[in-house]
Amino acid sequence: MKRHIDEDLSAVRQTLLTMGGLCEEMIHFAVKLLNSYDEGLMRRLQDDEERVNRLHIELDELCLRTLALHQPAAGDLRVVAAALKINSDLERIGDQAVNIGETSAYLAKQPPMRLGDIPRMAELASGMLKDALDSFTRGDVELANSVIRRDDEEDRLKSQTFNELVALMQADSSTIQRGLDHILVSRNLERIADHATNVAEDVVFMVLGKDIRHGGGHPVA
Amino acid sequence: MKRHIDEDLSAVRQTLLTMGGLCEEMIHFAVKLLNSYDEGLMRRLQDDEERVNRLHIELDELCLRTLALHQPAAGDLRVVAAALKINSDLERIGDQAVNIGETSAYLAKQPPMRLGDIPRMAELASGMLKDALDSFTRGDVELANSVIRRDDEEDRLKSQTFNELVALMQADSSTIQRGLDHILVSRNLERIADHATNVAEDVVFMVLGKDIRHGGGHPVA
Repeated sequence: MKRHIDEDLSAVRQTLLTMGGLCEEMIHFAVKLLNSYDEGLMRRLQDDEERVNRLHIELDELCLRTLALHQPAAGDLRVVAAALKINSDLERIGDQAVNIGETSAYLAKQPPMRLGDIPRMAELASGMLKDALDSFTRGDVELANSVIRRDDEEDRLKSQTFNELVALMQADSSTIQRGLDHILVSRNLERIADHATNVAEDVVFMVLGKDIRHGGGHPVA
Repeated sequence: MKRHIDEDLSAVRQTLLTMGGLCEEMIHFAVKLLNSYDEGLMRRLQDDEERVNRLHIELDELCLRTLALHQPAAGDLRVVAAALKINSDLERIGDQAVNIGETSAYLAKQPPMRLGDIPRMAELASGMLKDALDSFTRGDVELANSVIRRDDEEDRLKSQTFNELVALMQADSSTIQRGLDHILVSRNLERIADHATNVAEDVVFMVLGKDIRHGGGHPVA
């Protein structure tokens, strides 16, 4: 039998996935801008951000309405609580993508410099977000755990990028401004991966009712 | 008449404020470490982080239990939803303070360099967090709005710090490593101010039922 709450839960899921899809597109645009800056593409990135911001507010409203109208329990309650948290992470992923786009505008005015591990970091972060969203859709704990495990590799690439760029800047001071911009981009990508990891942790919690953050396997009511 | 839910709501508020107090202490420790690194103080910062991480999990549990047991409506529901969100921001403020402590350990091994606007950024961010927490306690929308307004000044100081440090690094390449570390610290402080701003926005929403994020004055059910 279809329950009244199912319609609202389905709207919650759908809005979250629409937002997630936009965030994936934003990362894709941001990396394209880094390779070759283009005003038109930057505007599309900004348009996506506005849509994500609107959905951010809409999704919170939907979650609160679902809680108020249906007073969900157990698994349903955890879906809504997870959606409230994932919502914040997705909105912040969008912000990071816009930051990369803005830095790309500065970089485009300077002589080119090789991107090093940045494309690899972008690919990894983007794959983590995609899989975190898929794990939400399918309630797939194994996939969510694989996202969480990949975050160490992103951190390793970030440190490697940092060290390489510092060495380059020290060897040739004309690269300082560009080097810094690349460091900022690598931090943006690391934060996207962190947010994807948060999403995956929320999915594990949603499915198992277990809070695995901070290294715990703490059961949650 | 005292309602059953009031006890749980009071535990939610109390846990949130305990966590917030620890975060304020962590920022204080982090800035002290930046001025003069000390292993013992670094351990106290790390101990605080562990306590914040435990409270992070506890507060989520409390919020979910309150939702499940009492099915709160209207204002009570908004308090719990705000606490769920503020919880994430506080935990991330703690992470940023630890990052500053870790960078301080690197900086302590290098020749000293003037901190420029960083102490001012720290004071501003710390005051924003304190006032955001006070606005939560008192349901004070005016105070919350004043926190939100102060975020522009933090952004201005961050950009100024960035430009000054880039100029210094370009003039004297022996300052590159230290300059970068200072830039990272200023980003950490900027993020603390951002999280304090998020807390203040959640307080406005909690009190008025209005979502003011993304420049909106959108009423929320």
